[in-house]
This record gives sequence, structure tokens and C-alpha cells, in this order.
Amino acid sequence: MTGTGNDGRVTLIGAGPGDPDLLTVRAVDRLADADLVLYDALSSPQMRTLAPEARWFYVGKRADRDSIAQDTINRILIREASRGRHVVRLKAGDPFVLGRGGEEALACQEAQISCEVVPGLTSAVAAPTLFGIPVTHRGVSTAFVVASGHTPSAWQPVCEGIAPGTATLIFLMSKRSRGAIATFLVDRGWSSETPAALLLGAATPGAHRWIGTLGTLGDCLMPAPAPGRAAYGTLSEAPGIVVVGSVVDLAGALAFSGL
Amino acid sequence: MTGTGNDGRVTLIGAGPGDPDLLTVRAVDRLADADLVLYDALSSPQMRTLAPEARWFYVGKRADRDSIAQDTINRILIREASRGRHVVRLKAGDPFVLGRGGEEALACQEAQISCEVVPGLTSAVAAPTLFGIPVTHRGVSTAFVVASGHTPSAWQPVCEGIAPGTATLIFLMSKRSRGAIATFLVDRGWSSETPAALLLGAATPGAHRWIGTLGTLGDCLMPAPAPGRAAYGTLSEAPGIVVVGSVVDLAGALAFSGL
Repeated sequence: MTGTGNDGRVTLIGAGPGDPDLLTVRAVDRLADADLVLYDALSSPQMRTLAPEARWFYVGKRADRDSIAQDTINRILIREASRGRHVVRLKAGDPFVLGRGGEEALACQEAQISCEVVPGLTSAVAAPTLFGIPVTHRGVSTAFVVASGHTPSAWQPVCEGIAPGTATLIFLMSKRSRGAIATFLVDRGWSSETPAALLLGAATPGAHRWIGTLGTLGDCLMPAPAPGRAAYGTLSEAPGIVVVGSVVDLAGALAFSGL
Repeated sequence: MTGTGNDGRVTLIGAGPGDPDLLTVRAVDRLADADLVLYDALSSPQMRTLAPEARWFYVGKRADRDSIAQDTINRILIREASRGRHVVRLKAGDPFVLGRGGEEALACQEAQISCEVVPGLTSAVAAPTLFGIPVTHRGVSTAFVVASGHTPSAWQPVCEGIAPGTATLIFLMSKRSRGAIATFLVDRGWSSETPAALLLGAATPGAHRWIGTLGTLGDCLMPAPAPGRAAYGTLSEAPGIVVVGSVVDLAGALAFSGL
């Protein structure tokens, strides 16, 4: 770690869905200059080669484990930048899509720490794209909704508020809540025949795509969990993305090379 | 142009919001190998340096001008790839967000041409991020809607279908329709005090951000058009992104360095 005086700063970087190849050029540039990197569970270990001199510190949340409180992360960002370091906060997806990046940026702002935000590929769009599902398609859908599937309070208001069939629905972090989401939508007038997909581990070695309908989504079989401690790329810890709408039907035709 | 026999292929690349720095590493890699690049109006001229040997061919649509028909683009993609060439289709944003990339991919599929899709930063998320507006924020918004503002048939169904205040609304290509969108939302119960933003030219030299409310959006003053023929980065041709919702209030606090 180098850096003294007042060059300290924070860069919030969107790491995209997983593959280091899907980082932006700007993200690679900023990482190369980092003294310290605070990273999440979904960051590929290969990303470390982009900042080999930096200290890497895991601050991600994992199911069944105590996670580091957001306040603590904010404090580390500010403390280390105040000491003159260039601190990179490497976040899965885009920093401002359901990732609490706004809170980290505000904390820096309040502490008068220089903060740059480098947008990243949100999995909400990149994962469907990589799995051959266009989130919009002429004559099929001209709009899409992105919501967190993590807790009912995050996805129920928008599901309650949207008329059936008026947009593609995309739920991040929704592997566990897929059945509840499907039931909720059908109860509110969405046809149980509406095409639906569950996408796991996009842009990771174990990418997995399930295609069905709202009626079958809750009971879809998941790939067997990897034995032992789950690590990057294992599907048992992938947060899962649910896509609902007629665009899912295009996935069959759009079987890209490399899928 | 090189390439013979059957190595011909098509790569649909999302170019992101404008700055070549916001291309992904994979996009840069694929461009370097292109024989022919079909590009849109929003691609930066600097991107040409990433494929200096390739032939670059403009197929973008521009206001007040005849545009090349989608069928013609599809035909060029297939014809050139059939001749053994690596054809890159460089599209602003993400290929599958309101960009007809799905149609191009399907055309390749039907012609049995190998087609890879490289996701890009959609301006729907990247532009707000770059302008300091988090599309989601804890306690403010846990969901967002993306729609095209190009024609009423594209944005009215989802605006009609969504309950006021249940999500951040993001309208692409909506500079001209901003007044109609604001009126439509207020008529359907959105408060005229709802914060709203108009974002132009994100990640281009002439980036411009206007912040107000739904009540003032229709009458917001636009920057003066550049004299003469509009070119990349001039705001008079920027398609414009409208963001509606309380997250817009955070833009004041999140005045990042570099904005």
C-alpha cells in the first residue's frame, strides 16, 4: 500500500456479472491503480490479477453467515481514503442497481472524500443477454421492470402495481423467492402459461439456464449443489435471476455459440 | 478485409453510452478482430482506433433522414459473414435493450451464421449512474422500469399499467416526448412534484443534466443546438433519457468528481 497526503479517494466499480472480460476498460484502468480493493462474493478470483499489488479485502454478504455491516464498509472506505489511499469498492453488477452503492457514495460525499463511480454491466440485463433472452423485442415487449427478489417488501409493490403483460419482469436475487413471485403474479392476473426463466451464474463457468412458465417456476429443479464450501461460480450460491414475459420464448431460437 | 471460407461470423457488440472507455474488455477484443464494422450514430469516432484495419460502415438512424432499413442491415450482416468475414454490429448501449439486436441475432440464426452477443452498458442504467442518480436506493426505490419514449405505443402501456411511486421510471429516447410523458403520468395520479431529470449525452464531451419535477419537465430548457451539422456528442441529436422518481433527489448530493 502506498499513498500519503490528500490523494486519497474512493472508486466504486461495477464488476458486471462475473467474467473479468466483462469489466469496462475504465474499470480495469482504475483497478490497476488501487491500493486496497473491497470486494463481494461474486467477484471472480481472476480479477485479482488486475490489481496484484493491492490489498484485497472481502466484505461480501453470504447466506447463513454474518455479513459485514454497511456502516463498517463505509467507515473502511473513508478511513483508508483519508490516509491517502486509493480504495476501490468492487461491486457485482452496477454499483447503483440494488447494490447499496448510493449509500457508499453518499458516505464519501459527507466525509468530503473524492468518489468516482464507474458503471458496470448490471446482471439484470447482461444475464438475459448472455443466455439469449432479449429483455425487449419489437412486437413482443418495449419495456422491462427490474426489482429485487430478496424480500417481499422489495418486489411486491411493483408486482402489485403493474398490469399483467405490460413489460418484461426481471427479479435479481430471486432463486429462493421464485415460487412466491410466481404465485403472487398469477394471483394478480398473469397467466400461468407466461414464459419464465431462471438464470444462474451468468458469465461464470457454471452458467445454468432453466426455461419454463410461471406455473412451473416454483418447482423447477436446481442443479445439485457443489460438495463442500461453495465458492465463486458454484450455482448453489448464485443469487439467481428470474425473467418473466414472452421474450423468454426467444431463448430457444437464440442459442448463441458460447452458451 | 480478410477472411475466406467458413470462419465468417457476426458479433453484436453493445458499445455502451458513448465513451470508448466504457466498452467491455471483451468488446475491445472482438473489435480488434473485425473485418467490417456496422455502427450507429452514437458510437464515438474514437472507437475506430480499436479496429483500424476494418471497414467501417454507418447504418444508424438519424432524425429527419431516411435510415437504412433493418432488413438491409440484416442482409449485409449475413452476406458479409457468408463471405467468411467477421462482421461486428456495434450498437449503442446493450444490443438487447430497445436496439433491435434480437432481430439481428434471429436473422443470423435463421441463416445459420454464427452469432455472438457481447452485452454492453445500457444507457438506461449507466447514464443515471454517471449523472449521480442511483436507479435504486435503500428506503427510496427498490425497483425500476425502463421503456422507450420514442412512440406513445412504446411507453403508454407500461405507464398506464404501473401504480404511481412504485418504481423509478426511465425512458430512453425521450427528449421529444418528455412533455407528453409527464402529462400522461400526472393524469394517472403521479404527483406533479415527483422529481424528474433529463439526461443528455452521458459519457460524451457535452454531457448535460437537467433536474426538476414532472410539473416542469415539459418546459425545461434545452442547451442550444450546435451550429451546422450535428455530430457525435452534440446535444441537439442526443436522444435523451428521462428519469422519474425520488431517487432523482439524490443527484444533488452525489455530485461526483468528473461530472
